[in-house]
Amino acid sequence: MDRRPRLERVRQALAATDAEALLVTDLANIRYLTGFTGSAAMVLVSATEMLFVADGRYGVQSAEQLGAAGVEATFSIGDRVRQMEVLAAAAAGRRVGIEAGSVTVAQGRSLATAFGRAPVETVGLVERVRRCKDSAEVARIRAAARIAADAFEEAISELDPELTELDLAIAIEGAMRRAGASGPSFDTIVAAGARAALPHAQPERVAIGGSAVVVDWGAVLDGYCSDTTRTVAVGGVGGEVADAWQAVLDAQQAGLACVAAGAPLADVCRASLATVGLAEYFTTGTGHGVGLQIHEDPFIGTTSTGLIELGDIVTVEPGVYIPGKFGIRIEDFYVVTEHGPERLSPAQLTPLTA
Amino acid sequence: MDRRPRLERVRQALAATDAEALLVTDLANIRYLTGFTGSAAMVLVSATEMLFVADGRYGVQSAEQLGAAGVEATFSIGDRVRQMEVLAAAAAGRRVGIEAGSVTVAQGRSLATAFGRAPVETVGLVERVRRCKDSAEVARIRAAARIAADAFEEAISELDPELTELDLAIAIEGAMRRAGASGPSFDTIVAAGARAALPHAQPERVAIGGSAVVVDWGAVLDGYCSDTTRTVAVGGVGGEVADAWQAVLDAQQAGLACVAAGAPLADVCRASLATVGLAEYFTTGTGHGVGLQIHEDPFIGTTSTGLIELGDIVTVEPGVYIPGKFGIRIEDFYVVTEHGPERLSPAQLTPLTA
Repeated sequence: MDRRPRLERVRQALAATDAEALLVTDLANIRYLTGFTGSAAMVLVSATEMLFVADGRYGVQSAEQLGAAGVEATFSIGDRVRQMEVLAAAAAGRRVGIEAGSVTVAQGRSLATAFGRAPVETVGLVERVRRCKDSAEVARIRAAARIAADAFEEAISELDPELTELDLAIAIEGAMRRAGASGPSFDTIVAAGARAALPHAQPERVAIGGSAVVVDWGAVLDGYCSDTTRTVAVGGVGGEVADAWQAVLDAQQAGLACVAAGAPLADVCRASLATVGLAEYFTTGTGHGVGLQIHEDPFIGTTSTGLIELGDIVTVEPGVYIPGKFGIRIEDFYVVTEHGPERLSPAQLTPLTA
Repeated sequence: MDRRPRLERVRQALAATDAEALLVTDLANIRYLTGFTGSAAMVLVSATEMLFVADGRYGVQSAEQLGAAGVEATFSIGDRVRQMEVLAAAAAGRRVGIEAGSVTVAQGRSLATAFGRAPVETVGLVERVRRCKDSAEVARIRAAARIAADAFEEAISELDPELTELDLAIAIEGAMRRAGASGPSFDTIVAAGARAALPHAQPERVAIGGSAVVVDWGAVLDGYCSDTTRTVAVGGVGGEVADAWQAVLDAQQAGLACVAAGAPLADVCRASLATVGLAEYFTTGTGHGVGLQIHEDPFIGTTSTGLIELGDIVTVEPGVYIPGKFGIRIEDFYVVTEHGPERLSPAQLTPLTA
């Protein structure tokens, strides 16, 4: 992945602020701009220079990773005191921006002291650039989704009514890890029966037999996340449940039809569920961006504003959650192209039948 | 767990600040004080009252969990706008403290606007109370360590040279989950041969046979973490490796002998490694606190100040990391009692032999 175009876009965004340089401290933003995967670093970006600051654990690693990413930087490796001295010297006489959405108040005070002046508070500057994915990012996310889909299909190929939610979650996570994922992109949800009506239930040691089972899972590959939900069952389910499954699928497809560059980021599934009287049971958001973080801009929902853009990667995930009875969710995620949304997960979709 | 004594200690700490109330936003701190396990809430604590604010997902759950914890609070459930209105009304005319170590600069601005005045910046107020664990917490951490030890012993009972780092990590994590852990307390480290010289290596698909393997793992149970490291091998290892293993064990025991209430939080292992010329290869910290977070106060190392206290739960984890050759780490964690440190993990310790 060539990081230089990204850096150029961040520099353009920086030029539109009061700051002459930006101190990047969010680790996902640092990874995005430099390829560095360690757990602690700071990067000072100005119109013409980049200063990369980290501790002794990361001297070799940062030089290798930035080199591989084609990123030119001045490196300063040292302890925390030394790092602040180096940053202060580089910041001298300049208005330095900080990432106000992730820097803590206490860190902000330390930086102000080190710089001898209050930093400029910027919000979401790198995140805004990160929002639209380039082709290398789309390829990684597609590969993560493939690993996740394969793991899911392997796990459900031997669905047994005695299997527990926890068994299924462990099987999916283990298969993803063996296939090269560094881990799940969030705590895998496997929720059967009435527990599926809790949108973020943790898997328990309860058998999944005889009910609809919501499986919401994803893989992380090379830092990038996937996110998909299927609702499956061992054998048939009640007619009300099968009907709800079809209504959620219809809502998912209706929502998908509204995903296009330039379309509003508005809720795009609720109207479909309303036609069958289920809108009141759709108590979660409609979708969200996916990338280096599992939830990132843009968010799709009743209170969202703004427009979908080319290169957005977003989920569309309607559900119905009937308290004490059952839950259904179907989620796919898409990259928005000039030719419309392209589905990123190949995970099979099997209708629930009565 | 009765939370009232904890709340009392936080109120005493609050009385020593400029603030008349404290807005608790860190989720571990909220869990500690109220028992609430959800992903979003704010708690305003004053000398006589507690206001608990959350969104609609958590109305029922928060009432149940605070009730079970014996915590009396006024509840306000609503969307973000409503939450800020309620907080602003409760804060009116009072100096409100915020947690400057976790509140972001942007959140701090929003709160200042809502309150109509700059909040009082406090640092580590609840964390300071959290540091010394009560008996209920020790029991939970001991139970987490038991689950982790059992999972490790099950996984290494069938050690095979063809087994990969990744296989072993997946086996340990799966066994912990099946035994009731909500997950690993951090990314499980299984690192063989020269890779073990990287203190935070991720498990790869490389066979573990013929070398020393560092396994650093822990479980989360009821929110509380465990943390242990063993270095094992399939069959014998080279004499240099076996000698280093013994030197690390000696250092671990020498360190443990210095863990007592009132003793300095200084590095307590390096001198022992220096006697065999290995101190320069001990490139990590000596120990850290463990509780609701895997790394929390107090930290033990060459730059640490302050004293060990009754109720501290700390790791002692010396290691030697010989670049390109091998790595050894032995870590146990202890609760500091009046009778000295009590080991919390029963995980077996098997000497490496040449």
